[in-house]
Amino acid sequence: GSELLKHEREQSNIPVDKLSEFLFTKEVLDRQKKILNILTAEKVFDKSQNYFNGREERFKTALARQKRMRQLAVRHQWTKDEYMMASELISEPGPYGLHVSMFLITLRDQGTPEQHKLFLEKAENYEIIGCYAQTELGHGSNVRGLETTATWNPDDKTFILHSPHLTASKWWIGSLGRTANHAVVMAQLIIDGKSYGPHPFVVQIRDLRTHEPLENIHVGDIGPKFGYNTMDNGFLLLNHVKIPHVNMLAKFSGVDPKTNKYVKPASASLVYGTLTWVRSTIVLQSGGVLARGVTIATRYAAVRRQFQDRDAKEDTGENQVLNYTMVQVRLLPLLAATFALHFTGRGMMDLYQENQKKMAGDVGKIAHTGRGPSPEELFPSTDLLADLHATSCGLKALASTTAAEGLEVCRRACGGHGYSSFSGIGSWYADYLPTTTWEGDNYMLTQQVARYLLKSARAVLKGNPSENDTTRIFRFFLSRRDMGAAFDVLGRDEDIVAAFAWRTSFLTFEALKHRDEEKNSWNSLLVDFWRLSTAHSQYLIVKNFYEALRSYSIAEELDPETIGIMHKLFRLYALHTLEREASEFFSSSAVTVRQIQLARTKAVMKLLEEIRPHAVRLVDSWNFPDWQLDSSLGRYDGKVYEDLFHRASELNPLNALTVDPYPESEVLVKKDERDKFRSKL
Amino acid sequence: GSELLKHEREQSNIPVDKLSEFLFTKEVLDRQKKILNILTAEKVFDKSQNYFNGREERFKTALARQKRMRQLAVRHQWTKDEYMMASELISEPGPYGLHVSMFLITLRDQGTPEQHKLFLEKAENYEIIGCYAQTELGHGSNVRGLETTATWNPDDKTFILHSPHLTASKWWIGSLGRTANHAVVMAQLIIDGKSYGPHPFVVQIRDLRTHEPLENIHVGDIGPKFGYNTMDNGFLLLNHVKIPHVNMLAKFSGVDPKTNKYVKPASASLVYGTLTWVRSTIVLQSGGVLARGVTIATRYAAVRRQFQDRDAKEDTGENQVLNYTMVQVRLLPLLAATFALHFTGRGMMDLYQENQKKMAGDVGKIAHTGRGPSPEELFPSTDLLADLHATSCGLKALASTTAAEGLEVCRRACGGHGYSSFSGIGSWYADYLPTTTWEGDNYMLTQQVARYLLKSARAVLKGNPSENDTTRIFRFFLSRRDMGAAFDVLGRDEDIVAAFAWRTSFLTFEALKHRDEEKNSWNSLLVDFWRLSTAHSQYLIVKNFYEALRSYSIAEELDPETIGIMHKLFRLYALHTLEREASEFFSSSAVTVRQIQLARTKAVMKLLEEIRPHAVRLVDSWNFPDWQLDSSLGRYDGKVYEDLFHRASELNPLNALTVDPYPESEVLVKKDERDKFRSKL
Ligand SMILES: Cc1cc2nc3c(=O)[nH]c(=O)nc-3n(C[C@H](O)[C@H](O)[C@H](O)COP(=O)(O)OP(=O)(O)OC[C@H]3O[C@@H](n4cnc5c(N)ncnc54)[C@H](O)[C@@H]3O)c2cc1C
Ligand SMILES: Cc1cc2nc3c(=O)[nH]c(=O)nc-3n(C[C@H](O)[C@H](O)[C@H](O)COP(=O)(O)OP(=O)(O)OC[C@H]3O[C@@H](n4cnc5c(N)ncnc54)[C@H](O)[C@@H]3O)c2cc1C
Repeated sequence: GSELLKHEREQSNIPVDKLSEFLFTKEVLDRQKKILNILTAEKVFDKSQNYFNGREERFKTALARQKRMRQLAVRHQWTKDEYMMASELISEPGPYGLHVSMFLITLRDQGTPEQHKLFLEKAENYEIIGCYAQTELGHGSNVRGLETTATWNPDDKTFILHSPHLTASKWWIGSLGRTANHAVVMAQLIIDGKSYGPHPFVVQIRDLRTHEPLENIHVGDIGPKFGYNTMDNGFLLLNHVKIPHVNMLAKFSGVDPKTNKYVKPASASLVYGTLTWVRSTIVLQSGGVLARGVTIATRYAAVRRQFQDRDAKEDTGENQVLNYTMVQVRLLPLLAATFALHFTGRGMMDLYQENQKKMAGDVGKIAHTGRGPSPEELFPSTDLLADLHATSCGLKALASTTAAEGLEVCRRACGGHGYSSFSGIGSWYADYLPTTTWEGDNYMLTQQVARYLLKSARAVLKGNPSENDTTRIFRFFLSRRDMGAAFDVLGRDEDIVAAFAWRTSFLTFEALKHRDEEKNSWNSLLVDFWRLSTAHSQYLIVKNFYEALRSYSIAEELDPETIGIMHKLFRLYALHTLEREASEFFSSSAVTVRQIQLARTKAVMKLLEEIRPHAVRLVDSWNFPDWQLDSSLGRYDGKVYEDLFHRASELNPLNALTVDPYPESEVLVKKDERDKFRSKL
Repeated sequence: GSELLKHEREQSNIPVDKLSEFLFTKEVLDRQKKILNILTAEKVFDKSQNYFNGREERFKTALARQKRMRQLAVRHQWTKDEYMMASELISEPGPYGLHVSMFLITLRDQGTPEQHKLFLEKAENYEIIGCYAQTELGHGSNVRGLETTATWNPDDKTFILHSPHLTASKWWIGSLGRTANHAVVMAQLIIDGKSYGPHPFVVQIRDLRTHEPLENIHVGDIGPKFGYNTMDNGFLLLNHVKIPHVNMLAKFSGVDPKTNKYVKPASASLVYGTLTWVRSTIVLQSGGVLARGVTIATRYAAVRRQFQDRDAKEDTGENQVLNYTMVQVRLLPLLAATFALHFTGRGMMDLYQENQKKMAGDVGKIAHTGRGPSPEELFPSTDLLADLHATSCGLKALASTTAAEGLEVCRRACGGHGYSSFSGIGSWYADYLPTTTWEGDNYMLTQQVARYLLKSARAVLKGNPSENDTTRIFRFFLSRRDMGAAFDVLGRDEDIVAAFAWRTSFLTFEALKHRDEEKNSWNSLLVDFWRLSTAHSQYLIVKNFYEALRSYSIAEELDPETIGIMHKLFRLYALHTLEREASEFFSSSAVTVRQIQLARTKAVMKLLEEIRPHAVRLVDSWNFPDWQLDSSLGRYDGKVYEDLFHRASELNPLNALTVDPYPESEVLVKKDERDKFRSKL
């Protein structure tokens, strides 16, 4: 293994450190080193039993780690970024997860100064520990359908929180199951028999000393999941629980205790911004999420040798499986996608920051991964930031789907060994999967994108569009629609971008025709909308990748050869996407059938060949420490087999059980040496 | 939940029982009932803690269950089919898995009568318990590359089995880790310094009484996996282990102890047949595998309501998510695929049986799911049964990929609750995944299909093909190639089949040109081969489905309305596939761009609408008992929320832990009531 990876690294000139710096900045890389040193010195973060432990053990360990992280954060005065870096390196969801993200954020963003004193300060000091309780057994996507009620009681100026049915039980709430003693509960505000929609209430759920549930509160963990088992997602039933007036988070709206009247929100745009920001974070992270799988699979495919080349004339030894084009075509487009997603996430963040500057507030600066509310549900009329918002919806859906499905492609590319927990891909994939469902189910988000695109298209047709990229490409499309396009996708990079823009525009005006002229029902168009949103998001990714490669900074920081390879990755991502979506490209006349055939049989195959020698250095530039990957197959030094063997034979508690194998014998275990085994570890 | 499913069942006339009988026969349905009654009466098969237990507990439980199954099999004199039915209902891989399948089969098929006495009889009585040890750390697909050696020792007429390197360690071997005391070890036979390739040897690895490993044997469990954790896949290192001459399975080849010469195999065709049979079984099972996910997701989508219809004029209550076309387009083509795969599996089995009759042997009658050898590696020149063999390779790959990926689509279609273990999809998916890798990695198998198709095409061009379906469609294609085709895919079902045949033929002759005329390397064509194999297998599925619907028996057993719906499912499967693979269909001129557009926007959408009302009854006809599905979401009675809540709050041991949540406290668990909890269960 070692020599093969050494050889791989010798055959390419990509300056790995420079490329890493360009991708992440030196500051981030230094931070990573610093935090990694602190973490690896602590026994509680030792990962060696992670893959072996069952749910209860894993949860306990995760809690211990979260406590220690908090202690370290206090001792070393970690910044938010440093704390996030530690989380990333540890790479497991933990029981403080929703406290650190959604609980603090909601208190801060939606609380008044008085409420900050009362709740936020204590929460920041971990005197109270909270979660964000929105989803219920019966309602997730449809926030307005929540059943939990918060009824205003004018007599003693309190709210009564109540779960009227079983389906009103809060469900999926991270950190609620065993850990939190407070929750922000989203409940239907009811004043004088009238409902004003879901609003946030702070509810204490467990005793601060005994940690037992308070009276009339039924709370617990919802049980094991496909992944995320280090987290205690919980349920919560409230039986007429009374809370004081001050517990309704009242920055935007509330109940006037004097008049008993509802006070309407002034503007929802700030919360709206937070949501856009959260989704942009998912886009930015998706590149790195996928890159872990690609790093593992690429290194392993360079170490794994299987079969001689079929056309080999003499005995050349077995071929690295990375040399098989069928392996390349699975892994290298995903390698290209990691960069595409990274640059797109960056682009989104820049845009977001620019926009924020123009606006008053400064919400959303704290990093978090929570599952937030859907203000587009709460405030459907808001249209501030609309372009950015739509972009973030579409890209969140496409990016998280690409990362999740790409990880499974990587796992499978590793053959049998990919199935071992020690591959390090399976658990990472399983933990990541809910990202396709939360913060807006990926399929549902596409409706919002379509709605926005249709609206923009209508504005363009009416001649009064706002000035942005979407309306620009639509206008270009309309101006050329009757002339047709002739994009040289195999020859010129900017034509690739233009072809993607053309396809989006084409699909938008098709959908508009179906909706506005043919008056088709919304439901009958959902599949078209999903295709449209995907097409638009692919366009955005291609465009962002392209622009990143034309940026001033890249020419400053990287040598021409490396930039050349990045351009090849750009083309691979774009042309591979183009051939997979071929039929939309030629139905829209963006390209010809011949061009697609050439893309498929020539261009993509050639790019695979050209990128192949650089594959290992390219994944190296993602700069994952072995400690983070925790993978036998993805080790930097290529000692795949040694590590698999070590873990199986030295770290595996099952081998401390000697069984009685005969069917007639009632004895299952003849000898249980697990205690001895554990004391050795 | 209950009323919604009741309503669903009322709105369709599909005779569920009749359809079930048509699919499975009355005999099988009766068998299912009988075995289910036996199993559910036994405490050891109680499933209620399955999703909660960790690896060691699950393995122990699985062992206990396997023992009990064997006892029941003896007591009730179960047939092989009855035993298989019990396994299916229990639905978990168990530690006797490879004993029952590959160990017994290999002894039987490759052992002499003397060896049957010595090993097979004992194995059948569970006096010895075995496994099939082929794969090594370093070699899986490439069987000829195995490193374990079996060196013939002429002095004392023994073999020395040895693992010369770490990578020679046997790996992944089911039942080996803790359970087996014997193994069939595939090792390179070496006589007088010369290697004769891999051969099977029976090796005792553990003491029959103490169950401790014998001297010079290093054996153990390889650790946790993405799924399959009730099975003890193992590793095995042999250090110059001596075994007698009789331990080499010698039915086909061996060493003559008198002359010390190798005895060549007479013919490999029988083993070849077994492999074809195993792959056909995977095809046949894939329909049912997928149907579990489709059943769960379809029922849940009928119970789950979320949002009002967007175009609804008045308050109609929330919509069942199964009414959203975006949910339908994910689930209903998979529903169609379950039937397509089922009929294709049936077709394969019939063909196989027909062929077997023509041949002498009767191998392969015993059901098993083992990971077998690759005789196409061991005996590359064999070409008996070639068409059937190629068919089984291609279909195994496509069917298992379709089932595996389809299950994840089903899981995701359930939104957040799909992620809960209680959905019953996740663990089923995880356990099924290795099917895409074993019995020939799905990507690699496609090379064999392509090789066969190229060979057939060459024969057709030379004018001396054998007479079979493949050569028939090639000849038709050649006869019309210069006239073009005009298939009425939207109008006539047989034209759909013909269009799929045309595409296969087109891709075959394209590939042939690349290989034979342009002399492209094998490696450079792997991606084309994969596409070709996929195309060919899709053709076979479409054809088998079509033929099943024209069969005499269907008209006998089912009413015209039901047959009509089956035809719609056929068209949905075919046209949905056609539009997803659109670019190959029009590049080959099998259909026009316009036809594809119509298929996409009109035909498929219309079929979804027409099939929608029958969805629940159609999944009902797959006839899964709730006990088998073990799913809150897929319950026959629709009591989804009650069941989720019950499992979370009553069966979940994590809720017996009260933690100390504060970061400064070193105490993790304040109160551990798990013992109390368990005694309650
Ligand atoms: C691991 C995990 C952690 C979570 N943590 C939290 C948390 O801390 N706090 C919290 O409040 N929530 C949390 N959630 C809940 C999460 O936000 C919801 O599960 C998510 O919003 C999806 O909603 P749902 O489950 O109701 O899906 P549903 O809306 O029920 O979706 C079911 C299916 O119907 C489809 N569908 C629904 N409506 C439509 C429509 N109008 N048109 C077309 N298709 C439709 C969907 O695409 C999907 O396929 C968590 C979930 C998970 C899995
Ligand atoms: C759960 C499980 C149970 C198992 N049980 C058993 C058992 O009981 N007994 C037993 O003997 N084995 C068993 N196996 C092993 C199994 O048979 C092998 O894992 C399987 O054959 C795949 O081989 P591999 O792992 O060597 O894959 P590899 O061949 O190493 O494949 C790695 C990658 O390289 C690609 N590749 C390799 N060669 C080529 C080529 N020539 N052209 C193009 N691409 C190529 C593959 O497509 C794949 O993506 C089990 C495996 C699993 C996961």
